[in-house]
Parts: sequence; C-alpha cells; structure tokens
Amino acid sequence: MNSNKSFEPGCPLPISAKNTVQLAHGGGGRLMQELIQDVFVRAFQNPMLESLHDGATWPVEKGTLAFTTDSYVVRPLFFPGGDIGSLAVNGTINDLAMCGAKPLYLSAGFILEEGLSLDVLQQVVNSMAEAAQAAGVPIVTGDTKVVDRGKGDGIFIHTSGVGFVPTGVRVLPTLIQPGDAILVSGDLGSHGVAVLSVREGLTFDSPIESDSAPLHRIVADLIECDIEIHCLRDLTRGGLASVLNELATAAKVGMTVDESVIPVSEPVRGACELLGLDPLYVANEGRFVAMVPASQIEATLAVMRQHAASSQSAYIGAVTDHQSPPIVLRTVLGTHRVLDLLSGEQLPRIC
Amino acid sequence: MNSNKSFEPGCPLPISAKNTVQLAHGGGGRLMQELIQDVFVRAFQNPMLESLHDGATWPVEKGTLAFTTDSYVVRPLFFPGGDIGSLAVNGTINDLAMCGAKPLYLSAGFILEEGLSLDVLQQVVNSMAEAAQAAGVPIVTGDTKVVDRGKGDGIFIHTSGVGFVPTGVRVLPTLIQPGDAILVSGDLGSHGVAVLSVREGLTFDSPIESDSAPLHRIVADLIECDIEIHCLRDLTRGGLASVLNELATAAKVGMTVDESVIPVSEPVRGACELLGLDPLYVANEGRFVAMVPASQIEATLAVMRQHAASSQSAYIGAVTDHQSPPIVLRTVLGTHRVLDLLSGEQLPRIC
Repeated sequence: MNSNKSFEPGCPLPISAKNTVQLAHGGGGRLMQELIQDVFVRAFQNPMLESLHDGATWPVEKGTLAFTTDSYVVRPLFFPGGDIGSLAVNGTINDLAMCGAKPLYLSAGFILEEGLSLDVLQQVVNSMAEAAQAAGVPIVTGDTKVVDRGKGDGIFIHTSGVGFVPTGVRVLPTLIQPGDAILVSGDLGSHGVAVLSVREGLTFDSPIESDSAPLHRIVADLIECDIEIHCLRDLTRGGLASVLNELATAAKVGMTVDESVIPVSEPVRGACELLGLDPLYVANEGRFVAMVPASQIEATLAVMRQHAASSQSAYIGAVTDHQSPPIVLRTVLGTHRVLDLLSGEQLPRIC
Repeated sequence: MNSNKSFEPGCPLPISAKNTVQLAHGGGGRLMQELIQDVFVRAFQNPMLESLHDGATWPVEKGTLAFTTDSYVVRPLFFPGGDIGSLAVNGTINDLAMCGAKPLYLSAGFILEEGLSLDVLQQVVNSMAEAAQAAGVPIVTGDTKVVDRGKGDGIFIHTSGVGFVPTGVRVLPTLIQPGDAILVSGDLGSHGVAVLSVREGLTFDSPIESDSAPLHRIVADLIECDIEIHCLRDLTRGGLASVLNELATAAKVGMTVDESVIPVSEPVRGACELLGLDPLYVANEGRFVAMVPASQIEATLAVMRQHAASSQSAYIGAVTDHQSPPIVLRTVLGTHRVLDLLSGEQLPRIC
C-alpha cells in the first residue's frame, strides 16, 4: 500500500486491504477514523452522529426523561429471526418503553475482537441501522474499542437510550397492587430456543425464530388509549417466571398465574421438552407483561392485539396479597407449583 | 451450602462461596439478583438505581441535553493513578463536559469474564462509586453480562452519560475559527505512560501516575465566567496530535502549535524517549484543549489554573486558515514538522 495515497479521499481503504479488524482500528488514528466513517457513520447516517463531537446534543421540553443501558454478548452473533445488532437496538428501545417512555435516541458502543471479519461487522452494523430506522430511533453517538485476539468474542455491543415520558405517565413496579390483572403480550420462549438451536446445531420440524421486536409503539398506543398501566416489564433473561418474581418482590405482593392460558407455541413446547427447558424461564426479546386494573383487561388486550408483535396477548393471572414464595402457577392438572427464581440460568449468553 | 438458607437475607452469599464470577451471575436468576444487590446497588447507592426498574427516570426543565457513551477495555485493570472503574466514570463525565454540559447521570454496563475474582470486581466497583461520588454524578441504571472464560478479559465497562447544557452555551468543532487560541489544560502523556509502565513491568526514577480526572467543574467555571468557548475536546486516544487533526478537519481550518510551550513532564519525556513514543500522540484521561478567541487567552488561563487538574494550563498555538496537512508543529529547533494522524496507534488498550 502506498501510504501517501491513503491521505486522499476515494483511494482503496486500508481496512478493506486485510478485511479484518486490527488493534489499530481502536487506536484513535487514521484507521479508526476510517472505520467510524466508512462503517458506522455511513450506516447510521444522521446529522447528530455526523458532527463527530464527543456527544450528541438536542433540545428538550420540560418533562420526564428515561435513561437505560444494556450490553449484548449473544452467541452466536446471528440466529433465526435476528442478530446481535437488531437485538441491541430493540432491547434498549424496549427497556425505555417499559418505563412508559417514547424512545428518542440511542448510543452504541462496540468492543471488537482483533481478527473479526469486517464483513461480519458490516452485516451487524447494517442490521442495527435497519432496526433503528424501522423503530424511528436514531443512533446518535458511539464508541469503538478493539481488544486482542482471544480477549473478546467477535462483537460485544452496548446500547444506551434516552426517552421522554409523556406527562402524567407513571409505570413502576411499586404501583402494582393486589387485584391487578397480569397480561402477557404473546407466546413465550422463541428467542431462547432459536438461539440455542443454532448454537447447538439443532433442527426442528417447524423452524423456531426469535421473537426479537421493538415494543415501543404498542406501549405508546396503550398510553394513547388511556389504559391505566401500573407496570410493564419485558421478559428477557430468566423469562416470565423470573420477571414475575422480581416484580412481586419489588411491589411486595404475590401473583398467581394459570399455566393453561400462558401462550407457548407447539414447536417451542416440543423443543423445550426435548431439551429439558421450562419455557416459563426462557428469555424472550419481544414479549412483555403488563399489570393493569382488572377492569381494564378487555380494553388493554384490544389495544395490544392490534399490533403484530402482541397479537397473541393473553390474560394469564392476577396479583394477590403478599405470599411467600411470591409466584404460584396453577398447572394444567389443577395443582399448584411455586415458580421460584432459579439460582442461575438455563441458557447462558442468550442476549 | 444449604440452599434453603440462601432465601433469607443476611445469610452467607453463594457468590462469596466460590469468590469468582460464574456464568450464572449473568443469567437473570437468584445469583444475578444477589450480585446486583450486594455489589452494584450497595456501592452505587441512590434511590433511582434502587428502584431496579428497566431504566431511570427524572424530571427535566426545557433546555438542551447532551448524551454520550464510551467503552473501557484498559489493560491492566489497575495502574498508577487509577483503574478501569474510575476511568470509566471520569471519561464519560469528561465527554459530557466537552459538550459544555453539566453531567447529570451515568449508566454502567459490565461484561465480566467467568472466573473473575469477586474481590477484583468489588474493588473496581468501589472505585467507580468513589469517582461518581467525588464528581457528584450518580450511576442510576446498569446492566451485567457474563461471558465464558477466555471470551473476555476480566472486566469491560461501558458507561453512558446524560447532561444538561446551560442556556446559550454552544461548544462545537465547527465554531473553531482562524485566529482562535489553542490552550491545553496540563502536561501530556502521563496516562498512557503510566498504563504502559505497569503493563510492561517498567519502573522509572520518578513514578508516573495517570492524569485521570473529572473535568466538568473546570468547564462549568469557564461557562460561569462567561469565557467565549468555541470548542473543547479531551485528549484521549491518539493524544493531542490526533485530536487537533480531528478538530481541524471538522472545522476546515489549520493549526500551528509550538513545541517549546507544550507541557510534558520530565519523567514522561524521559520515558517516551526510552520507549520510542511521541508524547504528543500518547493518550491522556484528564487533559483537554480549549479553542477560544485570542482576546480571551488570559481570562481563560486564569480560570483553568484555579483547578488542580488544569493548574499547568498553557497557551500552545493558534488556529490558522485551512492548510494541508492541517497541523504544523513549530519545533524547539525552529523548524516545522507536520503532525499527521498516525495510521494506527502507539499503545493499544489504553482506555
């Protein structure tokens, strides 16, 4: 490579010469500038990011802000129905939505392993850009680091998000009260099983795709329709059972849910039986629970079912007075089973 | 361990039983809850974090917000004058300050490697908590992931930050104009050399400590004193030379700086000579450049020199009309040298 030529715009890029990420791509020099311009800025294009300042700035009205963060280490990077890029965008949008917020802007931080294929990086970044575009939530600031080969695992992504909570909206675990209805936005377990299937090389008769999806428009509709939401929570790591435990503990209540009405697709149920997994503990990336007053069940379900990602919403149980252990499942056999927090996890690195 | 006992508060923690991070600590179950409560929430204590909601929310006045993000992969985790924890807090505070913003809140995301000592994690988290406390910027939301042994490197930290830009304040690369003075807030190169020294097992006659420090109070003072700031930028990866290149390119100007007045301490100068490094390209974590009108040089230096972290502030050069290459150094010998962007980096994983 002629080093003088690399000063001129339009010349062949050093980064494409080797087609892999080098330590120098994280070094603050020309290679990093080119990576930022040619991969990130080009894909995420928006004026705030293009300013290449240390941060993004924008005017805001008086109100309430929401702020959230998540790291993504899913393995493998690509799986049926999604990849680490779309997951990192949807997941953080969903965390904002679960606060009742309208997501405004995202940040993206990358930890790349030396030797990563630049084509793979480009694919992931394109997927992020598409997910951000589809959700209408731009990525406005970012950071890139490179770690030595064997000190990372291809790509880790960190996204943070800022949102605006509409006036009068309060969505908090502590607002949950006995008598509230528990609604779930769709069938459970697809994300975890989809990731596991490709990781373990399993094939099923009916292909299982991740449920990864942005949920903010559903929440915006619930707010728009004046549904009295007490709490929302997306059913990620640890699945429905773990989330209900967390919420019940925070709200100092109990909850009883009915196995016969908790939606689980036949392929996921079959795969879980085969793999010895309980779908109630499997991670989802496009499902949430909503706690609303019992009087609002029908109205809430009507709004939720208008959206593709929550078309199978179901009323699955009720909040009770405090009980210990807090979460009880009424099984299809009519018996009762405690849904405790697992010690660890069924599936590592699922998100 | 009696598994029933782990349900009760105050009992010996399973996490301390093995004293290392397990994959299960990232799994959404009981071990993760305990890690969050016993390590993170306890150290970062504040009501917003303790709500354990999917995000933090707070009321905001009409105005301008700033939002920034950074990942930290420094190796080793501890070095003279700092560690990855304080670096992750100060670095993101500084990115907000460089936008002219008063930092409000931080998020913290952790990617932990299976097998990491919980004592090391606690030390890093305590250092973050102290840095956040000292800076008056609480960590209000977070996330933890665990990756398999050999797929990470101990601890990676992502911090994002949100700040409020005071009315009328605009600090942008594009505001830099020919005739502006270039000021630097102190001596250069200590951070990079301090990290390198411990990584390579080097000892120097005079110990060299990282300059890692929060810079937001200096910036707040400059704004308070009505200094007409055109641009600010912290001198991290790539050091002074790379930052000046970036800013000159963004502002479509040239810059000429004077080697004889650029502060570099004798120990750092000696270490750089020994190691074949150019201190103008070495990363700093508590130094910044300010571009201000020439009429404001003395007033700006007077404010900056009141703060310990910028007591050695110096006027080092001037912005010129566009020139190519953009950055010229007037050497101590009276000759001129181009300060170009390096292709890669002198020191990998310095922040």
